[in-house]
Amino acid sequence: MYKNETSIGLQIHDLARELFPINRSLTGNGVRETLSILKRENRELNIFKIKSGKRFYDWRVPKEWNVKHAFLRDHLGNVLIDFRKNNLHLMGYSKSFKGSLSLSTLKKNLYSLPNLPEAIPYTTSYYEDNWGLCLRHIDLLSMPDGMYEVDIETELKSGFLNYGELYLKGASRKEILFSTYICHPSMANNELSGPVVLTYLAKALKNRGGLKFSYRFIFIPETIGSIIYIKQNLKKLKRNVIAAYNITCIGDERSFSFLPSRYGNSLSDMVALHALKFSTPGFKKYTWSDRGSDERQFCSPGVDLPMASVMRTKYGEYPEYHTSLDDLEKVVTPEGLQGGYDLLNKIVDIHEFNCTPKARFKCEPHMSKRGLYPSISSLQSKSQVSNVMNILTWADGRNTLLDISNRIQQPIWTLFPIYKELCDNGLLVGKD
Amino acid sequence: MYKNETSIGLQIHDLARELFPINRSLTGNGVRETLSILKRENRELNIFKIKSGKRFYDWRVPKEWNVKHAFLRDHLGNVLIDFRKNNLHLMGYSKSFKGSLSLSTLKKNLYSLPNLPEAIPYTTSYYEDNWGLCLRHIDLLSMPDGMYEVDIETELKSGFLNYGELYLKGASRKEILFSTYICHPSMANNELSGPVVLTYLAKALKNRGGLKFSYRFIFIPETIGSIIYIKQNLKKLKRNVIAAYNITCIGDERSFSFLPSRYGNSLSDMVALHALKFSTPGFKKYTWSDRGSDERQFCSPGVDLPMASVMRTKYGEYPEYHTSLDDLEKVVTPEGLQGGYDLLNKIVDIHEFNCTPKARFKCEPHMSKRGLYPSISSLQSKSQVSNVMNILTWADGRNTLLDISNRIQQPIWTLFPIYKELCDNGLLVGKD
Amino acid sequence: MYKNETSIGLQIHDLARELFPINRSLTGNGVRETLSILKRENRELNIFKIKSGKRFYDWRVPKEWNVKHAFLRDHLGNVLIDFRKNNLHLMGYSKSFKGSLSLSTLKKNLYSLPNLPEAIPYTTSYYEDNWGLCLRHIDLLSMPDGMYEVDIETELKSGFLNYGELYLKGASRKEILFSTYICHPSMANNELSGPVVLTYLAKALKNRGGLKFSYRFIFIPETIGSIIYIKQNLKKLKRNVIAAYNITCIGDERSFSFLPSRYGNSLSDMVALHALKFSTPGFKKYTWSDRGSDERQFCSPGVDLPMASVMRTKYGEYPEYHTSLDDLEKVVTPEGLQGGYDLLNKIVDIHEFNCTPKARFKCEPHMSKRGLYPSISSLQSKSQVSNVMNILTWADGRNTLLDISNRIQQPIWTLFPIYKELCDNGLLVGKD
Repeated sequence: MYKNETSIGLQIHDLARELFPINRSLTGNGVRETLSILKRENRELNIFKIKSGKRFYDWRVPKEWNVKHAFLRDHLGNVLIDFRKNNLHLMGYSKSFKGSLSLSTLKKNLYSLPNLPEAIPYTTSYYEDNWGLCLRHIDLLSMPDGMYEVDIETELKSGFLNYGELYLKGASRKEILFSTYICHPSMANNELSGPVVLTYLAKALKNRGGLKFSYRFIFIPETIGSIIYIKQNLKKLKRNVIAAYNITCIGDERSFSFLPSRYGNSLSDMVALHALKFSTPGFKKYTWSDRGSDERQFCSPGVDLPMASVMRTKYGEYPEYHTSLDDLEKVVTPEGLQGGYDLLNKIVDIHEFNCTPKARFKCEPHMSKRGLYPSISSLQSKSQVSNVMNILTWADGRNTLLDISNRIQQPIWTLFPIYKELCDNGLLVGKD
Repeated sequence: MYKNETSIGLQIHDLARELFPINRSLTGNGVRETLSILKRENRELNIFKIKSGKRFYDWRVPKEWNVKHAFLRDHLGNVLIDFRKNNLHLMGYSKSFKGSLSLSTLKKNLYSLPNLPEAIPYTTSYYEDNWGLCLRHIDLLSMPDGMYEVDIETELKSGFLNYGELYLKGASRKEILFSTYICHPSMANNELSGPVVLTYLAKALKNRGGLKFSYRFIFIPETIGSIIYIKQNLKKLKRNVIAAYNITCIGDERSFSFLPSRYGNSLSDMVALHALKFSTPGFKKYTWSDRGSDERQFCSPGVDLPMASVMRTKYGEYPEYHTSLDDLEKVVTPEGLQGGYDLLNKIVDIHEFNCTPKARFKCEPHMSKRGLYPSISSLQSKSQVSNVMNILTWADGRNTLLDISNRIQQPIWTLFPIYKELCDNGLLVGKD
Repeated sequence: MYKNETSIGLQIHDLARELFPINRSLTGNGVRETLSILKRENRELNIFKIKSGKRFYDWRVPKEWNVKHAFLRDHLGNVLIDFRKNNLHLMGYSKSFKGSLSLSTLKKNLYSLPNLPEAIPYTTSYYEDNWGLCLRHIDLLSMPDGMYEVDIETELKSGFLNYGELYLKGASRKEILFSTYICHPSMANNELSGPVVLTYLAKALKNRGGLKFSYRFIFIPETIGSIIYIKQNLKKLKRNVIAAYNITCIGDERSFSFLPSRYGNSLSDMVALHALKFSTPGFKKYTWSDRGSDERQFCSPGVDLPMASVMRTKYGEYPEYHTSLDDLEKVVTPEGLQGGYDLLNKIVDIHEFNCTPKARFKCEPHMSKRGLYPSISSLQSKSQVSNVMNILTWADGRNTLLDISNRIQQPIWTLFPIYKELCDNGLLVGKD
């Protein structure tokens, strides 16, 4: 089980509350504002900007989008929708539109959810010329026939796409990559939880120090951001990344979820599954067919990075997903965030603990002589073969400590101190 | 499910009715007559003859056997058995015998089935000097004690063994081999169904044209025919055959059956299983231990051809098997034959469709730009990852289209048109 | 099932009864006396001696321990414990001690089993300076408060550790190793059963003659003995040993048990599992985590010998284990020993029978011509594919006879005579 202390969970939740109202999208002022707040938390964060129109693989960087205002008014001038109240009211990348429309015409550009009548849905139209307003279905039902005034003023112009990258150098150039995204407006689990939890994970790793591996955190717009990032960094990533995690929907209190890398047999998969299995009871396993976030790019043919996804309730699998109900009250909580944070720390632990132990003696060492084994052999002491002996028996240089943990079904964090003691006693030598 | 149209099924059934009364065996006039009718249907059929006595591996070509007549009469001269009424009445390769025998002596050479009293059993004695008459058990029971007259006149002399081969050249010299046998007298499922269905499959492939692979059909006497054929053609077969199928018992309406090649891991196994899984619900899987037809020769050590068996009800597994009840009325029907024919066409399709797709871009292509993906991302469109994206994600050059189909549990005939469209759009390139 | 004849079982039991009263330990006169009796049974047994204090890997050979006497008396001089009555009364390697102690002080050095109040427990303190007396818990409970006289006189001095080795040369230098231990005092299943059963197995192999493989039997003190033996012989063992078995607890009548080698995929594992599966219904499979005997040394990293353990009820898993209740009356019986003996003979058979058959003909041989197959093919004879045909079909040089046995789920002792006949008929050739 993850730790129940919520002190860090509360801090993470506070940061999420600060970031929540900002209007994020693929591009725009909201993204820059978000990144600058994240940089305030970790000065090591580098912020990059990419010009609109530039090509990356099959894609072009979209124009930069900013919103002036968006209103829907009835024929009496009553404001029915105001973007300032909730930025989900406006379709992402909506163009400007001003006009008077009958209800039936207007409806072609209104989005609501009959099955979730209290929720404002989240819609986007990044690469298609379009406008749209989103509202609660109960509000739509209360709108009488007649004429309505739409007043959307947005700016779609050549500008920049921004993303952030934070690199913590460890003893080895080999690195663990954490990726999350910063392109969602006011929704909490998907996706403020990823950026805020990773921000605090980065803080923790700085404090921890003495890291064996390097750690890289990227805060990118989903899809186009990962495509840009991969195109810019592929050679370096392929050389250094030994494990990669897509972090999303990591702040609710429901059970944990796991989605494997493409072939499901990478170190990332093994580490994440170990952490989940031994610290979160009853987590849910998805398959590559259920993918839907940036692992699609990182694991694509030719890129082939070993990215697994670690989540609490997976995107698309909880009722509040992609609506205004995905909030910081009922869905994402300090305790939920703390749980996600603790799990990621376990994942880091596993990477840092892992190594390849090798026995320095043939046959079992004389444990009792070394004070490592009860010296009176009676029924009790012989009735179990201890973790100590299990580490030694598998320390043939063909098994990592993680392999051994899985073989004997013990968490690596239980075995690591024993491994250290056996090294100190000269019985084992470890190869990283 | 296979198509329910029975137009071709009716034509196949007509051909079977024409061939049914002919007395086939390992050798003889009936085999030649059968092959000449098959050649009338497909002029490409080549007919070969092999001299009696010639050695092939551990075997010698048997003498040619032809029947003049075979009667059993009671002491009053009443005809109890007449070979002209049903050629199963005479044991295959029975020698001539003329004599007057008491019932108890006669019984040593009479064959009937107490458990199937209405059926005339099928027996042979190819390589042992013997004579025998087969009859319905109810007829045997009605025979009073007394003397009986046996009058069998057959000819067993040096002559020829015949078989047919039909080769359809495709773009590649690599070929798919279909084998069936022409040595059974008047029984429908085992074995007229194989020859008639393959005759119509060959017609279909000629009409289809533009074939990627070459196709070879052989119509041989079982066992000795396959041994001769293998000895004559082994080098060529080993060089060219990428998949091989033994086709037998393919005309009844019961469920389909599959019997793997020796190791069960060949392309033939994979293709046949895919066809069966996605087009025939509830087919039955046998193992190599259940083998019993020409796959025993084609998959033997040193030959090692990848022959899988595709059947409806397997030989030996239906009550009418090897008796006069295996007929063209109750057992083999137009619909049953059509089902077998459709399945074999699916197998051909899979071979023709299969290829190794490779993505031309790293990361996902920009599908909406290309009109291949809904451009408004709302809950509905994101809720599933489509076949399109699944083909792209597995198009890393390590998976064939058939591998991908199995990975994502979709029939290859659903994926192939998508694959083609993605090639046309420049997103994929396919390697055969 | 194993054979029910108990004639050899009775002989083995007689030998066990002779050896039972001797006080065995890691070293000492009892070990030498035991080995000399075993040498009387098999003159080929060589007895080795190793000096106290010599280093082997992380271990030193312990001093030699011999017992003069051991008594516990009450304050009236009544004898409560006398080592001569049962050598389990004295802790193994107990030092000398003479003194008058109150019951409460004495209790720190008394060992009994509250849950098995009728049993004298077996305890040792090989490498720690200690003394101890063991007694039945009911006897302990009947001891009133007061003073008691302890009088233990033992000798712990530089001397020798002894072990025995018996080597039977076969046609090949490749060998099968059987290991058992001779360091336990008066307990029957663990461990007199191993030494006495292996003694009779060695006799049987000498009588059998014509062995394909060489066989080595070692009779060693557990742990330190195997460590010494490995250190002395590792190079030779690694070159020659193709399979190894630890034989312990092989004389009771309960079900058989199997504990695999470290990775569980050696020839020893395969052979032992085959023998157990086809001759002992319902045997119990343990895992490497359940290990606890000399396989810990033989399978240790760097030693890596393929040692599987074959047992009846595993050590630690039966109530009488390591107590005076492990006797030659209720636990170890002639029939139990016979069962163990029969199983080991099966294991030897499998090794001797195993080979790699290769078909000399392509395609099936003409069996009826050779009188190996019924020549009239009717329903009955075709309804099963025989063991004969199954051996031939798998005789491609990639499968051993044991592989084939497992593939077709037949015991190798059923297939071996068929294999021989097929070789005699010139259809197969076997490679050892």
